[in-house]
Amino acid sequence: MRPNQYQKQPNFKKIVNSNDPSQNKNIKNQIRDLQPGDYYKGTVKILRKVKPGPLILSVFDGSGKIDAIARDSLFNEMKRNTTGITTYDFGNIKIKDNRKKKKTSQSSNNLKSITEDDIHVDDVFEIQGKIGVHRDKLEIELDSLKEATMDFNALINNQSEPLRNTFSIKSERYEAMKPVFLRIAQRIRHAIIDDQPIVIRHHNDADGICAGLAVEQAVLNVMERRELPSKNRIYRSPNITPFFDQIDLFRDISKFTRYSKQFGDKSPLLLLLDTGSTPENHFALQVLQSFKFECIIVDHHNPGTIKNGKSVVCDLIEFHLNPYLFGYDSQTCGGMLCYELSRFIDEEYDQPIYPAVAALGDRCDIPEVDLLIAQSQKNREELFQMAIVLDYLAFQYKFDPGEGVYEKVFTNSDILNIIGTKVKSLFATKLESMLPHIKSEDINGICFTIIELEKFTQRGKYPTSGKVLGIVHDYILSQNDAQPVFTVGYFEDGIIIRASQPILPVPILLEKMERKLPNANVEGGGHEQAGSIKFISVFGEDVLNFIKTQLQKI
Amino acid sequence: MRPNQYQKQPNFKKIVNSNDPSQNKNIKNQIRDLQPGDYYKGTVKILRKVKPGPLILSVFDGSGKIDAIARDSLFNEMKRNTTGITTYDFGNIKIKDNRKKKKTSQSSNNLKSITEDDIHVDDVFEIQGKIGVHRDKLEIELDSLKEATMDFNALINNQSEPLRNTFSIKSERYEAMKPVFLRIAQRIRHAIIDDQPIVIRHHNDADGICAGLAVEQAVLNVMERRELPSKNRIYRSPNITPFFDQIDLFRDISKFTRYSKQFGDKSPLLLLLDTGSTPENHFALQVLQSFKFECIIVDHHNPGTIKNGKSVVCDLIEFHLNPYLFGYDSQTCGGMLCYELSRFIDEEYDQPIYPAVAALGDRCDIPEVDLLIAQSQKNREELFQMAIVLDYLAFQYKFDPGEGVYEKVFTNSDILNIIGTKVKSLFATKLESMLPHIKSEDINGICFTIIELEKFTQRGKYPTSGKVLGIVHDYILSQNDAQPVFTVGYFEDGIIIRASQPILPVPILLEKMERKLPNANVEGGGHEQAGSIKFISVFGEDVLNFIKTQLQKI
Amino acid sequence: MRPNQYQKQPNFKKIVNSNDPSQNKNIKNQIRDLQPGDYYKGTVKILRKVKPGPLILSVFDGSGKIDAIARDSLFNEMKRNTTGITTYDFGNIKIKDNRKKKKTSQSSNNLKSITEDDIHVDDVFEIQGKIGVHRDKLEIELDSLKEATMDFNALINNQSEPLRNTFSIKSERYEAMKPVFLRIAQRIRHAIIDDQPIVIRHHNDADGICAGLAVEQAVLNVMERRELPSKNRIYRSPNITPFFDQIDLFRDISKFTRYSKQFGDKSPLLLLLDTGSTPENHFALQVLQSFKFECIIVDHHNPGTIKNGKSVVCDLIEFHLNPYLFGYDSQTCGGMLCYELSRFIDEEYDQPIYPAVAALGDRCDIPEVDLLIAQSQKNREELFQMAIVLDYLAFQYKFDPGEGVYEKVFTNSDILNIIGTKVKSLFATKLESMLPHIKSEDINGICFTIIELEKFTQRGKYPTSGKVLGIVHDYILSQNDAQPVFTVGYFEDGIIIRASQPILPVPILLEKMERKLPNANVEGGGHEQAGSIKFISVFGEDVLNFIKTQLQKI
Repeated sequence: MRPNQYQKQPNFKKIVNSNDPSQNKNIKNQIRDLQPGDYYKGTVKILRKVKPGPLILSVFDGSGKIDAIARDSLFNEMKRNTTGITTYDFGNIKIKDNRKKKKTSQSSNNLKSITEDDIHVDDVFEIQGKIGVHRDKLEIELDSLKEATMDFNALINNQSEPLRNTFSIKSERYEAMKPVFLRIAQRIRHAIIDDQPIVIRHHNDADGICAGLAVEQAVLNVMERRELPSKNRIYRSPNITPFFDQIDLFRDISKFTRYSKQFGDKSPLLLLLDTGSTPENHFALQVLQSFKFECIIVDHHNPGTIKNGKSVVCDLIEFHLNPYLFGYDSQTCGGMLCYELSRFIDEEYDQPIYPAVAALGDRCDIPEVDLLIAQSQKNREELFQMAIVLDYLAFQYKFDPGEGVYEKVFTNSDILNIIGTKVKSLFATKLESMLPHIKSEDINGICFTIIELEKFTQRGKYPTSGKVLGIVHDYILSQNDAQPVFTVGYFEDGIIIRASQPILPVPILLEKMERKLPNANVEGGGHEQAGSIKFISVFGEDVLNFIKTQLQKI
Repeated sequence: MRPNQYQKQPNFKKIVNSNDPSQNKNIKNQIRDLQPGDYYKGTVKILRKVKPGPLILSVFDGSGKIDAIARDSLFNEMKRNTTGITTYDFGNIKIKDNRKKKKTSQSSNNLKSITEDDIHVDDVFEIQGKIGVHRDKLEIELDSLKEATMDFNALINNQSEPLRNTFSIKSERYEAMKPVFLRIAQRIRHAIIDDQPIVIRHHNDADGICAGLAVEQAVLNVMERRELPSKNRIYRSPNITPFFDQIDLFRDISKFTRYSKQFGDKSPLLLLLDTGSTPENHFALQVLQSFKFECIIVDHHNPGTIKNGKSVVCDLIEFHLNPYLFGYDSQTCGGMLCYELSRFIDEEYDQPIYPAVAALGDRCDIPEVDLLIAQSQKNREELFQMAIVLDYLAFQYKFDPGEGVYEKVFTNSDILNIIGTKVKSLFATKLESMLPHIKSEDINGICFTIIELEKFTQRGKYPTSGKVLGIVHDYILSQNDAQPVFTVGYFEDGIIIRASQPILPVPILLEKMERKLPNANVEGGGHEQAGSIKFISVFGEDVLNFIKTQLQKI
Repeated sequence: MRPNQYQKQPNFKKIVNSNDPSQNKNIKNQIRDLQPGDYYKGTVKILRKVKPGPLILSVFDGSGKIDAIARDSLFNEMKRNTTGITTYDFGNIKIKDNRKKKKTSQSSNNLKSITEDDIHVDDVFEIQGKIGVHRDKLEIELDSLKEATMDFNALINNQSEPLRNTFSIKSERYEAMKPVFLRIAQRIRHAIIDDQPIVIRHHNDADGICAGLAVEQAVLNVMERRELPSKNRIYRSPNITPFFDQIDLFRDISKFTRYSKQFGDKSPLLLLLDTGSTPENHFALQVLQSFKFECIIVDHHNPGTIKNGKSVVCDLIEFHLNPYLFGYDSQTCGGMLCYELSRFIDEEYDQPIYPAVAALGDRCDIPEVDLLIAQSQKNREELFQMAIVLDYLAFQYKFDPGEGVYEKVFTNSDILNIIGTKVKSLFATKLESMLPHIKSEDINGICFTIIELEKFTQRGKYPTSGKVLGIVHDYILSQNDAQPVFTVGYFEDGIIIRASQPILPVPILLEKMERKLPNANVEGGGHEQAGSIKFISVFGEDVLNFIKTQLQKI
């Protein structure tokens, strides 16, 4: 112990009455306004309680957060005051010894005496004390601690209300979904104020990255404006699969459970962006619910059957924003939705390039896209180049958040052009090498093509099979503007589909296959004109024939 | 430098004689009993020596551990006392400057003078000093430091003796192995007290997880009861392969070597649980020995040839507990062994569900299993569901310890049922899709089946090929209760075997193959009725034919 | 705030004039010489500026580095001094509150007043203050801070000049490259002194490991001698591919960009050792340049076409040392080059075993190798065994730096022999199993052999396909000392080549293939007698036939 570290602070009353000019400080009751040397008096919620050592309470009063130090002398004095003993016994101060876990609980022969064990996270107390600085942070040295009542949740809810309520563009679709946008924004703002960690998981493509970056930035802006630390309070990383894969799921649960146990963090609020809606997420969401993780989905992938305005995952989560739930389709992509959400989270948020890149990356084709492009002040080619560069980087980064690099794609034209040129040259070379091997056939007026993808892709190299299929499909389409084009790429145990028109939507195809080929273990997901299906390899031929038959029946 | 940080503490003698009531503290000689303001006098072992800065010694006296601060002033005073200089020269205090590594060694013209360089880890000293608090920990500000002699190792050994000496159930097998159980428990308790990190590596299945969790929890309990920090003192993670794979091996060596170098940690005590016994571990254990890592194996996998009560790995490790070394077989599984070991490590340890789940997971079939089930107070179905859920999670977690999730499988029925239902449905779908493709043949009265696993499994998805084989094998068995059933799953470069009776034990098959197909590079391991063998793919057909021939010869 | 933490220090002038013997300290002007209690006065460069809290400046004066604490009182006093206000107002001290980002900028009505915002990294100031100790480090409590001018870059450059200028062996090749060696060594020494992180990426084989270890050790030695902390200032890890792969590239960029943002680290100096020269690095180096990462390559792999003494990557990096740029070939391997470089970085560096092991690992065959072997004081067999053990460990460690293990291969004969014996036995078993399946043919007097590698290798197991090819090639060579031997191993989408003589150099073969088989997407690299080529799997047969045709034409 440093010799004078426990010199008692002159207490609150003495200071107020003091004539010592150096102690003639302000008594303040907003944490946000405190300065070193001030006195604070106010009602606070306990956000965190740190032991061992002198008890450190992280407290919040609606205006800000601060650490409050409750030394054993405070509790001893309360005890003395309630038992009539007033002797000041500095020499006998009981300093908390962290090596002793089981301490004898103090005899509480008076209701006003509070012990350390009476203080819990989320409790409300009236506190007062002097403001000091420890290392680089303000802290309150508590002089007094009294139980209090106040509905802090209502206070936080009130503070969480979005401060903006208009969209960046005019859109009927958007307006229809507005109430859900606002409720989700409020819930996220609540988490920020209430010290609940926010975990963003997004689809690993240009659309998903734009969605994830926008929400992350908006949350960070609010934290910064409210002077709340962002470390260990916001996490972002992509899921490689377009749904919440079991491997990611269980890793996340273990990781955040550990953080709660080790550091006292609250259970996180999970945001699934541009992912999470499809029925294949059902199990993951059930598991999350059983572990008491709260979850919000903002996605545009087809959620399957909708009954009474709800999809199969709706009851497992807090909020589900998906255009299909409002009678729309996947044309309002994840990045478009999340950009507007970000503007409601942070009323000053403004990154109009993001939703435009997302929309072009996901090939959305609704009037809103033109408004977004106009608003972005970039041309379609530049925005599309950004999207293909993001897709390429997403492949390289996998589950890594790509911090500091993704952001530069939008702002640094050197970086954009170097990578963009590379990707275009990779695509051109690939197409050239495939053309001699591609034969299309006419089925029922449809230009149908099958490509054995494994022959034309190299494991772990870009372009991936999905991209390769896209390149070929786009080429065939450019040569066949009259016919619908339907292109299938296959590997041993899966296929990918691209269609120029919604002639055989993947979710419908998938449902039919499940019925007709029950033993093939088909699994997958997608939109009207694109998707992927996995199956047991022995059924490969059956699957391809089934698709042909379906096309003949259209 | 804070202005008054180096004010000299009134020394020991003065305090003892002092009339100042604030300094009228107890002189204590058990670290465990210390309070701030006390004086400590006792004989301690140096556990760790931290530089640069004021020398900080982590010391241990058999009752507890504490940091002791030895300032330069202490050494200077000793030097003065031995050279006749008694002037108190606060102004010239030599504070350790961490930027200067090479310091001139103090002239030691008197035997009683000790310099910093005379203090080594594991040395024993008599110390005294005042107890203070730094941040949140007690520490001793040393007034005196004298060389002492005391056999601390004997003291620790004495304290390490297990305090419980009966098994949880009555078992002749267990009793036969008891001396080894007790010696291993003592060795682990010694490591805990002596600040040696403990590293648990266990097999990645339900049995191995139960084994690893039990030992981890017992060690944590002892650390908590003895008020020793567990951070960086206990590690647990699964090995994905059922033996100590080279990749895990070298990563572990590099990691713990680095910890020793960077943080002064002792070389760890490695516990291989439900893994480690088979001959294929020989190289890994040789390497560990050459790097001076101590190793204990508690396993039930077949250790191969036994000579004079020793297997091929016995001489490379400290202790080897395996039922085969006592004439028994693999029916006492890893989780059963480690549960009893945990009870000897921590005399209050009690988790009777663990060994029951482990036994059912590994399909053990000896009378002890019934006792364990009875003791668990759960029924066989519940316990078996826990085992299949653990196996499923083990696949998802791979080398991740799954902290906070595995534990809940035993205690949270919601979580158990959600995952259990999922796994059962995965199994049912898989079996249904395979049945039309399975043809068994009769060989020498045995129902023999070969399954091309790659056709029915999807890389990176559950159920794995091993599980798929098990599902099919169990199904065939359910249809053939009269015949022995022998089922082989093959991929390009390996096979997996399951047999309903020990008609062709995998270790024997493996030895024969090594002789008859020397160029196939066969490698593998297993029990009497289950195992896996890898080989060079070009020999696939030879391997399958060899197995058929062997079955015909039985 | 601790009550007396902000007591003002008696200032510089007072101390100089003081009669108090406890304050009669030396005034020093070399940071390197400072002791607690001293006064420092000198001109320094700001290396880092840490906020929030009292402003902490990491400063450097050419002799050493130290933290300088600039409290708000310093700035207030400067302000008062420049505005005529001299009242000492301890009670109103404005301590920096880290929760307030936007502070009102102080009115600067006098040029001499410096505010916190006027201090930037790389600025030069004249400072003075008293030396104290915080925890375990010296620090200066600033009394005064004045703008100054001094060309620190010139000073650092001067201090960075290598202190040794002779090679470890006599070599004409080496002498020809000497100026580049010296310039690179000076640049690396500059980074060390200037607090710029150094990132080593090296090829993952025996040669690359020797190269990486040597440079890492030399840098660490210089840091230690100059008493600079090495933590987060030097990083080393292998690239698994023999070039700067996109995945490694983007991970590195994101990681170090994050370090810069979070911790204020400078953008790193990247050293590509035994890797980086081949044209396939062009894109990675372009990207690095666009992110403003500085890069140095020391490599011996064929850099392709050279024009005006420059290869295609030269203009993208700071320095490129490659024997081909001087008209030599790959026979001066990476480990040989980097050993000499290390000796220029650290004038006392001496590890003569490293270049000898590297040379034997890469099968270099020039007179320098004999000198290196002699200098190593080991025999050829021992050195070669070290090389094969390093190669084996490199496979196990992949991108892990293998800290604490690689080093022991050179010094611990137990470890060397245990692993060496294992590797030899793996090689022998593998060769034996392959021999019955190998058929060579005579093409144009060349002994030509094709091996289907997938049949003889197991994924994720050692020996890898590259090693397997080497084993077979060496065996064939040992049976055919008269003929040139050319051996090709192929998988579905790639081949590996080994040749006993430079009859068909891989870079030339690659160029021809690119022209003749443009759709095969060939990619790869290598030396005159070894290399690898990847292609789209459908072109496998074409590639093999093309090679045969080329051999017939020689």
